[in-house]
Amino acid sequence: MPTRRYEVGRADEATHPDSMRATLAEFLAATIFVFAGEGSILAIDKMYRDTTTTPARLVMVALAHGLALFAAVASSINISGGHVNPAVTFGALLGGRISVVRAVYYWVAQILGAIVACLLLRLTAGMRPAGFTVASGVGELRCMILEIVLTFGLVYTVFATAIDPKRGSLGTIAPLAIGLIVAANILVGGPFDGGAMNPARAFGPALVGWRWDHHWIYWVGPLIGGGLAALVYEYMIIPPVEPSHTTHQPLAPEDY
Amino acid sequence: MPTRRYEVGRADEATHPDSMRATLAEFLAATIFVFAGEGSILAIDKMYRDTTTTPARLVMVALAHGLALFAAVASSINISGGHVNPAVTFGALLGGRISVVRAVYYWVAQILGAIVACLLLRLTAGMRPAGFTVASGVGELRCMILEIVLTFGLVYTVFATAIDPKRGSLGTIAPLAIGLIVAANILVGGPFDGGAMNPARAFGPALVGWRWDHHWIYWVGPLIGGGLAALVYEYMIIPPVEPSHTTHQPLAPEDY
Amino acid sequence: MPTRRYEVGRADEATHPDSMRATLAEFLAATIFVFAGEGSILAIDKMYRDTTTTPARLVMVALAHGLALFAAVASSINISGGHVNPAVTFGALLGGRISVVRAVYYWVAQILGAIVACLLLRLTAGMRPAGFTVASGVGELRCMILEIVLTFGLVYTVFATAIDPKRGSLGTIAPLAIGLIVAANILVGGPFDGGAMNPARAFGPALVGWRWDHHWIYWVGPLIGGGLAALVYEYMIIPPVEPSHTTHQPLAPEDY
Amino acid sequence: MPTRRYEVGRADEATHPDSMRATLAEFLAATIFVFAGEGSILAIDKMYRDTTTTPARLVMVALAHGLALFAAVASSINISGGHVNPAVTFGALLGGRISVVRAVYYWVAQILGAIVACLLLRLTAGMRPAGFTVASGVGELRCMILEIVLTFGLVYTVFATAIDPKRGSLGTIAPLAIGLIVAANILVGGPFDGGAMNPARAFGPALVGWRWDHHWIYWVGPLIGGGLAALVYEYMIIPPVEPSHTTHQPLAPEDY
Repeated sequence: MPTRRYEVGRADEATHPDSMRATLAEFLAATIFVFAGEGSILAIDKMYRDTTTTPARLVMVALAHGLALFAAVASSINISGGHVNPAVTFGALLGGRISVVRAVYYWVAQILGAIVACLLLRLTAGMRPAGFTVASGVGELRCMILEIVLTFGLVYTVFATAIDPKRGSLGTIAPLAIGLIVAANILVGGPFDGGAMNPARAFGPALVGWRWDHHWIYWVGPLIGGGLAALVYEYMIIPPVEPSHTTHQPLAPEDY
Repeated sequence: MPTRRYEVGRADEATHPDSMRATLAEFLAATIFVFAGEGSILAIDKMYRDTTTTPARLVMVALAHGLALFAAVASSINISGGHVNPAVTFGALLGGRISVVRAVYYWVAQILGAIVACLLLRLTAGMRPAGFTVASGVGELRCMILEIVLTFGLVYTVFATAIDPKRGSLGTIAPLAIGLIVAANILVGGPFDGGAMNPARAFGPALVGWRWDHHWIYWVGPLIGGGLAALVYEYMIIPPVEPSHTTHQPLAPEDY
Repeated sequence: MPTRRYEVGRADEATHPDSMRATLAEFLAATIFVFAGEGSILAIDKMYRDTTTTPARLVMVALAHGLALFAAVASSINISGGHVNPAVTFGALLGGRISVVRAVYYWVAQILGAIVACLLLRLTAGMRPAGFTVASGVGELRCMILEIVLTFGLVYTVFATAIDPKRGSLGTIAPLAIGLIVAANILVGGPFDGGAMNPARAFGPALVGWRWDHHWIYWVGPLIGGGLAALVYEYMIIPPVEPSHTTHQPLAPEDY
Repeated sequence: MPTRRYEVGRADEATHPDSMRATLAEFLAATIFVFAGEGSILAIDKMYRDTTTTPARLVMVALAHGLALFAAVASSINISGGHVNPAVTFGALLGGRISVVRAVYYWVAQILGAIVACLLLRLTAGMRPAGFTVASGVGELRCMILEIVLTFGLVYTVFATAIDPKRGSLGTIAPLAIGLIVAANILVGGPFDGGAMNPARAFGPALVGWRWDHHWIYWVGPLIGGGLAALVYEYMIIPPVEPSHTTHQPLAPEDY
């Protein structure tokens, strides 16, 4: 069982400048990511009235999400850990990688970032955000399981490349792997439920565009999937730390 | 001739926790990869009834495979070596890079991962997996040779970037090179035989969708191609280790 | 408040060989980038007379810009810092990262590079450059705010991955993050105003193709967005340097 | 002026095992690259009889070339330098980075690799290779200048990221930058002359498909462009080595 890595509820964390900087970095990264992701959907609506999904559109939307998330994670990974997603933060919390105080800060920042991005889109594109919905003939339960599976893949990738203390030089490409697994997963989930894998990404356009159909799916699915991935990675993949090396090993990964 | 790097059939390997963790990592990586790869084909079927291949569809399928494989290899390379493919494991076995016991573990994990991915797709998408088949007017023999050539390119890339002890800092981008050569090769093989390069990738949908036409091609081709690449790389590209430096050189690559 | 990192107006900077090499590198990088970016738009015009934007065209244009900018930044980052964009140089100047003399050199080089690229396109493709314009029904003010938001994302990424002295091994993928956030942002801005994020990129085709409608947007928007990102990153994300460590800390980033 | 870095015509180079391994690596890398590049064009022909270029097809062909070249360069960069292109080898020769003997070996290997790839395509796809040609209404001279400009961008990127002794950690992403500038440049050159930037890439299908129209363009253009880029980079970008540090500096790049 992993040792608890952060003192939960440290008195000074709520006001420490590092927490503030990390929270600001999460807010800005979420804004950049959601602006490009949701914006690419509005860009398609601007080009056509017809909103049928086609492979070219799906590639466009998947690349907009994947490439912007890559830049957003790269821009924040050294400051906040580069979560940009409440499901990732939830996984990190379950895995004992961040404190409850910091998780709450990140959640607020991610959701605010998504809302600000959608407001900026409404201002610049002059269009109502589209957000996510379940395709006809698919069913809510299936889509919720789909979100679980897709988010499992995303958060597992986050743990393996960005959180595992033995990731070594792999950490260099962590933001790219995280961005591109989201792009790949949107190519699967797109025609079924949009492939959100991120409650903040879904909440921003739902609020600003005021569309709440099936919205619970985009919270329950990603949180279950992200939590599962965190537990599997922490308890089944990372080797248990031997008592005598507890403080040393995480600081000096042998393959770095 | 390379020295044998692993003691074949070490008594404790079958039960050692590291073997278990590596096998689990292969299973999960294969699940993530096949879910995105096969799922992208079902996503196209969801969008259209018409299943004619077009450049935009091929780009979509190639990106889903390539980007998900990148994340899957990145997520497992430090734990299991990031094979995610029985043909890669076969090459590593021929090159003396893993033991027979571990190869068998990996094969089972990769095949199980592909099956679980297809079952999850059946559950979430509610569709019968499509899998791979030979296009009309191409011929089985030609497609088998095509699989040999395509898999040669893949496994050669794996050896050069992820296995060669002198790969140095190139190892950082190994998962990306491995994922993207698969994407490039699907852009060639797609309209002919799908471009599997991976027996587990082909077996999962064949079993769950129960389609076995030409299935042997997707085992024989990749295993021959992967084996050939391994032998060429091990015996013709890697310089023979001089006796006096045997134990030292692989541990301290001079260009690291 | 960050200390001033460069002595502004150093007597020898205007003639020092390093300044000349850096300026030449900016000129060549801008030429390579604008040739591919603007050239991809002419390539579409060569294929069709019909100039309606479609998702496949937008992906093509976004990839041409993003992938060429990646190579252009990678080719110049060790020599000039890899700006390739007057808005990035403006941000670096506001953040105290380069001197006024060097900023002026870079601006001239970037603009000249864009002009030379468009002249070479006129010579080889035999076509009048298209450049950027505001789509019908969008409005200048909205597009200017769009350029501010898109360029904020780009320059924020530049600061986090390429300028922050604590970026560590993340610097290795900085050129990729910078190129790909531009690709993602073009997938948003394309159908509205083209998504320039770079005054030189817009000025070259405007001059050679002599189209000046709405041109001021592509200067005012990116400079405001780039300047804002620089100020936010420098003053709110980078921790203030403590007096006693001023000379030491930037040279030895602790996470390198 | 750079010092001559290699003794030209060293007596043992023609038979040294390292030269043989490097030559074999160039041959295999060229085979993998040309098989994917030319194969993607045949794959389109397999899907349709209609051969009109469209943005989706161009993206597909550009990605096949760019992603396969990335893997091919990554697979050979530690062994042969990862040229995979006679124009790159010519630039390296002009810049004094390889000997004449080795350059001749590489040229033969690259051309043989391209021929073998086209023969394998003829065998597996059962189709006559298409190769490169000048689009109607463009003109040979314009296309030759286009090849010069496009290859200049490619070889300049090669020098900056893979050859410059001060490239530092940027070398890690050199294969990606090299592959992706080719993808970007094909998105420009595609509808005009195909965008070869590589005489071996053009020669293989010309020989196997026996189509020689305008073929000289694909030799003269890339060799001039590659040579120019090499001379500009070597003499104008790399700082002259001071006499007293000649032997030391290239071995210990200060930013590594």
